[in-house]
Amino acid sequence: MTGTPLGTTTITQIGIIVGDIEAKARAWSEILGVPLPQIRETAGYEETQAEYAGQPTNARAKLAFFDFGQVTVELIEPIDGPSTWRDQLEQHGDSLHHIAFRIQGMGEKIAWLGGHGIPLVQRGEFTGGRYAYLDAVPQLGSILELLESDAT
Amino acid sequence: MTGTPLGTTTITQIGIIVGDIEAKARAWSEILGVPLPQIRETAGYEETQAEYAGQPTNARAKLAFFDFGQVTVELIEPIDGPSTWRDQLEQHGDSLHHIAFRIQGMGEKIAWLGGHGIPLVQRGEFTGGRYAYLDAVPQLGSILELLESDAT
Repeated sequence: MTGTPLGTTTITQIGIIVGDIEAKARAWSEILGVPLPQIRETAGYEETQAEYAGQPTNARAKLAFFDFGQVTVELIEPIDGPSTWRDQLEQHGDSLHHIAFRIQGMGEKIAWLGGHGIPLVQRGEFTGGRYAYLDAVPQLGSILELLESDAT
Repeated sequence: MTGTPLGTTTITQIGIIVGDIEAKARAWSEILGVPLPQIRETAGYEETQAEYAGQPTNARAKLAFFDFGQVTVELIEPIDGPSTWRDQLEQHGDSLHHIAFRIQGMGEKIAWLGGHGIPLVQRGEFTGGRYAYLDAVPQLGSILELLESDAT
């Protein structure tokens, strides 16, 4: 944590949207020589309370995480509901999606970025924390993800 | 370095294609709270010996590098010649472009990836080393960049 606007300058994750997570996960494992992780599915709306474009959504995805030291590569296959994941798959195909930072104080960070013209596009809860995607493409050339853990 | 195919599993860089590097660099500095780097221009063909799609190219770009610990964010604005940079800007606009690994033995690494269906798309020299982009989008969902330094 630092005195910067997000409280951190440590990139913790790179997210990649894919249409076929099983094949992509096998390829990451083989080409990079890293263990093949278990592929998990995110929960439905009752658990995630997900919102996309300001509306509740049953956005769900299959996820696979690869550990590359400081940085995790997250593969994301959209499987249900409207989401930034599905939008990107339809518009750009398999492609890099976001750069993530681990922050504290989700509400104030979202508000600060909003005040700098970077809008929230999707948010949701998961076991142990929550995420938010902000569309910083016009400013930074990338979607940002903020990740907050309950344990501080 | 490890016994993996690329000899490393450390992601060292995330590349972002932008149409307006001065504005994007200012925004990265302001939003993330990191120093504004100098923007530099890559050299012409005589120095880079760059090849794109198997042909010599005068591909040039403006570059800005931001230090985020283990990972550098590289902003790239294409300014001359055919390149993977220009292709992506035309096809996808401002967008995440590549994940980079620092390797040794450029020729053998390019050959190994080629043997696994991941073709070389662009390569070139710079002061102190060389780079290669490989189109791993069908396999991994991202372009890979290999970076090799002369000093080992």
